[in-house]
Amino acid sequence: MSSNTVYIGKKPVMNYVLACLTLFQNGANEVTIKARGRSISTAVDSAEILRKKFSPDVQVKEIKIDTEQVKDNETGSSSNVSSIEIMLKK
Amino acid sequence: MSSNTVYIGKKPVMNYVLACLTLFQNGANEVTIKARGRSISTAVDSAEILRKKFSPDVQVKEIKIDTEQVKDNETGSSSNVSSIEIMLKK
Repeated sequence: MSSNTVYIGKKPVMNYVLACLTLFQNGANEVTIKARGRSISTAVDSAEILRKKFSPDVQVKEIKIDTEQVKDNETGSSSNVSSIEIMLKK
Repeated sequence: MSSNTVYIGKKPVMNYVLACLTLFQNGANEVTIKARGRSISTAVDSAEILRKKFSPDVQVKEIKIDTEQVKDNETGSSSNVSSIEIMLKK
C-alpha cells in the first residue's frame, strides 16, 4: 500500500491536497501523509484543507509521531529529525 | 486541567520540553501540547525530545488536528490556521 502515501516536501500545499484527492478518487480507502522536520506543519495543513474544503467524508484515522535518524552525506554525522504520519480514511 | 497545557510559540524548543518535564515532575499524569501554524513542527519536536531524551516513560496518548479561525485585529478579516494537540501521559 506504499502507493497510497503522499510525502510532503517544499512545494505549495495545494499540490499535496490534490495528490491526496487523486488517490481517493482513484479508489483508495486510505491515504497516508508523511512528513519530516519543518514540513510537518504543511502535512497538517494538507490534511485539514482536504477535509474542510474538499472532502468532508475524509476522516483522520490515526496520527503517529516519531524520530528518524538522518545522515548527512557530506560530514557522515547523523542527526535526529521529528516525523509525522497522518492516516486518512474515507 | 488547563494548567496542564503547554502552548508552543517561537521560543527555543528546549523551553517547551522543560515546561512539560516540570509539569510531570509536579505530579501531572497528563500534559497537552498545543500549537498552531508553523509552530506545529516545534510541538512534535518537543514531544519527541521529551520522550526520547528525558522521559522514556512518557507516552503519546492521542494526537488531534483541527482548523481554527484567526481574526486579524487590523483588517478585521479572518483566516484559517491548522492546529495540533498532542496529549502525553505518564
